Amino acid sequence: MRKQTLRPDNVYLKSTFSSVGKKESEGPLNQYFDAKYKDDLLGQECWEKAESTLLKTTVSGALTSAKLTCDELDMLFAGDLLNQCTASSFALKAFDIPFLGLYGACSTFAEGLCLASMTISGGFAKNCGVVTSSHFCSSQKQYRFPLEYGEVRTPTSQWTVTGSGCAILSCDKSEIKITAVTPGRIVDLGVSDANNMGAAMAPAAADTIYSHLCETNKSPDDYDHIITGDLALVGSDLLCELLRQKGIDISKKHLDCGSLIFDAENQKVNAGGSGCGCVASVFSGYISQKLKSGEMKNILLVATGALMSPSSVLLGESISGVAHAVEFERTGD
Amino acid sequence: MRKQTLRPDNVYLKSTFSSVGKKESEGPLNQYFDAKYKDDLLGQECWEKAESTLLKTTVSGALTSAKLTCDELDMLFAGDLLNQCTASSFALKAFDIPFLGLYGACSTFAEGLCLASMTISGGFAKNCGVVTSSHFCSSQKQYRFPLEYGEVRTPTSQWTVTGSGCAILSCDKSEIKITAVTPGRIVDLGVSDANNMGAAMAPAAADTIYSHLCETNKSPDDYDHIITGDLALVGSDLLCELLRQKGIDISKKHLDCGSLIFDAENQKVNAGGSGCGCVASVFSGYISQKLKSGEMKNILLVATGALMSPSSVLLGESISGVAHAVEFERTGD
Repeated sequence: MRKQTLRPDNVYLKSTFSSVGKKESEGPLNQYFDAKYKDDLLGQECWEKAESTLLKTTVSGALTSAKLTCDELDMLFAGDLLNQCTASSFALKAFDIPFLGLYGACSTFAEGLCLASMTISGGFAKNCGVVTSSHFCSSQKQYRFPLEYGEVRTPTSQWTVTGSGCAILSCDKSEIKITAVTPGRIVDLGVSDANNMGAAMAPAAADTIYSHLCETNKSPDDYDHIITGDLALVGSDLLCELLRQKGIDISKKHLDCGSLIFDAENQKVNAGGSGCGCVASVFSGYISQKLKSGEMKNILLVATGALMSPSSVLLGESISGVAHAVEFERTGD
Repeated sequence: MRKQTLRPDNVYLKSTFSSVGKKESEGPLNQYFDAKYKDDLLGQECWEKAESTLLKTTVSGALTSAKLTCDELDMLFAGDLLNQCTASSFALKAFDIPFLGLYGACSTFAEGLCLASMTISGGFAKNCGVVTSSHFCSSQKQYRFPLEYGEVRTPTSQWTVTGSGCAILSCDKSEIKITAVTPGRIVDLGVSDANNMGAAMAPAAADTIYSHLCETNKSPDDYDHIITGDLALVGSDLLCELLRQKGIDISKKHLDCGSLIFDAENQKVNAGGSGCGCVASVFSGYISQKLKSGEMKNILLVATGALMSPSSVLLGESISGVAHAVEFERTGD
């Protein structure tokens, strides 16, 4: 029987860097982000180039913070939400680093961490970067309506985060270790409302967390926190309920990056934040700092992705989800 | 200094399966494909669902051929060219197998082989599947013009292959071994003609092949063939020329899947075939059979991807390329 949960060895977090836009920097996590842009265009002529620039500066920041040159980074795992993942590919051509493009919707950051961990543990790399991004304006344009249209958003809808996060993993020992990864399966419970991504992704998160806990013989109490990517308010409730039905109560340990990044009430983001850049910037900013300071000692990070496209929604197809989990522990505590 | 070329250990080709559409089955490689569909809709109501069905039946075929159940396949690496890679995600939700979504344009099949090889070699999986697909009609609709428009194609344009290929890699010994993988860097020489993808991708292929040969101390003569993904006629000439400038002559050893799959003159495909499904179906059909029969003893497979989107082309951006290489050898010869 297959084991979903894998145990990479000697994989440590070397550095992180997070970049966000204006709205994100006005939210509750303001102090934790490394770069905050007041101009969501980042001086570029269009949203796509702005997102690409955001991702590029984030990788540069993580390299500087890790005191690594491009030559010393063995591989970059990257992805975003733009068609054909052009935010990543246009950003990364400047770096001259072997490039592995990923698409896992908003689960991409954790997918990259899983793959980078296995690559390092297998002895194929010393240092690997993982980076993802999203941008509210490029996402609105591609997935929903032009900004000028003034779309009225449903209560369950989420606000795509303008942000990017990069984590550099390494075999060099640090205070934060990746102790397990659980790549997820596709789960489809038939949700077809493109304005309720949290509900579409929650079943996948539940499936991956359940597999992870069973296979590692752990309970939610063994973690300081179980942190999902961007289920936001609606999806988070559903996740807790789905796991409760399986006899697992994560409600006291659960946090969600989509809920953490915005003040839902005062920032008018409806259900909360979303996007490839949400979990990436919240992990690379807030969570990694809490792990470094010791305020969090061990966490399970579970990024969730909604597998759909504007075409598939028009075809009336349901939206399935996938979630990948990564376990971080402080070493020596 | 980073080494691009990596040496996975104990990684073997367990099974392959290839599926193609009508035009491909009328081409020179007809006898090598496992499944040939006369109806390019595969009984579905639209091209997107047809492509998804093609990919799904291909994975099923590879599992059957490997005598594996879904439970025995540890991971699936998959990707395609549709926005948000929905051909893969919709096809694979039936399988209940941990899913790693990739986007590397037409390089995705080799990218998956690189990642699956490292995953198996690192001890994280026994059996991994790699699958990609493309469909002429879904690609025309998304990237170019609706079929009804009757687009006049330029001489340098390529014909997207309707096809899918799946390879299952395993730690179980077989007669074909993966001996090295070389993940590629993004290379951009400034080509901006979306009707000349071969030219856009050739520099990346040259870069990866050059790195691979230097790092392994090999010459083209050490291989039966160096086989690129889908540079087709124009890109192949350019690749040979670029390597000649670096003192390497691959012209006598070079084959290209985009040139092999069609009879360019009689099938009116202009420069040749392309798409994620081109290298996947030609490898999983033709090449793997030649390796099994011993007619080919060792090859370097180099799949190339053009990193662009319809939006990036409209923005006037250049088209960069990426190429990943995988070295196959017969064991015991």
